[in-house]
Amino acid sequence: MAQPVNTTGPPRNYGVLLYRGYDFQDVSGPLEVLYGISNTHQINLFLLAQTLDPVLTRPRMAAMNPTNSSVYPTTLPTHTFADAPDLDVLIIPGGLGMRASDELLQTELKYITETYPKVKYLITVCTGSALLARTGILDGRRATTNKTSWKGVVHFGPLVKWVAPARWVVDGNIWTSAGVTAGFDIMFAFVKTMYSDGQELVDVWAKSIEYVPHEDSSWDPFSAMNGIPTQNQL
Amino acid sequence: MAQPVNTTGPPRNYGVLLYRGYDFQDVSGPLEVLYGISNTHQINLFLLAQTLDPVLTRPRMAAMNPTNSSVYPTTLPTHTFADAPDLDVLIIPGGLGMRASDELLQTELKYITETYPKVKYLITVCTGSALLARTGILDGRRATTNKTSWKGVVHFGPLVKWVAPARWVVDGNIWTSAGVTAGFDIMFAFVKTMYSDGQELVDVWAKSIEYVPHEDSSWDPFSAMNGIPTQNQL
Repeated sequence: MAQPVNTTGPPRNYGVLLYRGYDFQDVSGPLEVLYGISNTHQINLFLLAQTLDPVLTRPRMAAMNPTNSSVYPTTLPTHTFADAPDLDVLIIPGGLGMRASDELLQTELKYITETYPKVKYLITVCTGSALLARTGILDGRRATTNKTSWKGVVHFGPLVKWVAPARWVVDGNIWTSAGVTAGFDIMFAFVKTMYSDGQELVDVWAKSIEYVPHEDSSWDPFSAMNGIPTQNQL
Repeated sequence: MAQPVNTTGPPRNYGVLLYRGYDFQDVSGPLEVLYGISNTHQINLFLLAQTLDPVLTRPRMAAMNPTNSSVYPTTLPTHTFADAPDLDVLIIPGGLGMRASDELLQTELKYITETYPKVKYLITVCTGSALLARTGILDGRRATTNKTSWKGVVHFGPLVKWVAPARWVVDGNIWTSAGVTAGFDIMFAFVKTMYSDGQELVDVWAKSIEYVPHEDSSWDPFSAMNGIPTQNQL
């Protein structure tokens, strides 16, 4: 059951935008962190998509699966965009599907555009920042993305102040992370900031999932590995 | 379409055992690595469960969800145990569901027992080693598990040579990992060992997902953090 949006307390209602060809791990990282804090904080998760049909991680284009492999799990949404409850936080994962045409992604882009003014925070993981850039919401803001996919993302947001190096970037109420596994780090950093017992939550749960979070948002060996020059300070 | 088991080449057909209350990230970590190598190697993934119904990550017992949260994504199996194809590798995730009674898990334990003689390799992630221990297959073997859940796991395998510290352990054709995010490291290590271009696959994909793999199986700060004495060498 959805709780009403909590206007004074820490975030409680989290939505995740699912779309054809999203990256499974981009969703799993933040959710594993939310799962951890749900031991002591009531958390409501809403998995949102255009319809209630299973959302495929398999990309639309066969060229994106050159070996004709079947490595694509399928997750069920809990709500459609149309019946999504009010959220405190919207999480936008990346994945090859973010490259699809405006037409194919029009429902998702419209949902992001209409929802941003109503949430407290937006979080993107990996190339999820490309979807957000495509709505114009990132224009004039600092943001980051996956460094291996850098060129494929930044052209979607010519007015965005793309930051490198960066593990994650916070600009106002928009949090954007670097590639895939940075989804753990941005979510741990978000929890640390948002909950009064945040540091304890991070320490206890990181130990449980046997992860050593990167707690410095400037940690990023991947910008240099990908030859991306330093730009737009954190 | 399933390919026949490849008796001479590297692993191609991977199955993942899904069961009520498995941990989503225990599955996602290895799958993200398989997804990466599928850029150049044909990989078939089979998500296996008792029925084709969606498999819930929500634990059965309300006591395991003390805040009454809804942080539990649901994934669709691709095959039942009964119609599962021949596999090269079976992956067994952990999660709170591994604690259920023998009766509730009898189908899963039977599938593991009957399948082990037919696969080339078994891989467990996190407390997935508890399920394997419960079948007796780990008796007399070295294995590891999540260090925070150590006591809750080792009692399922009193004849197992539980190893600490360890990020992962290989004994014969059975690979067992430490907690949750060790699922990335064991899978990267498996790929490095099994594919002739393994090191390159690991380097390229780790960079893409912006992860620095722990390539030393003895890396494990969590044993000491949990007060687990050193036992049974790697």
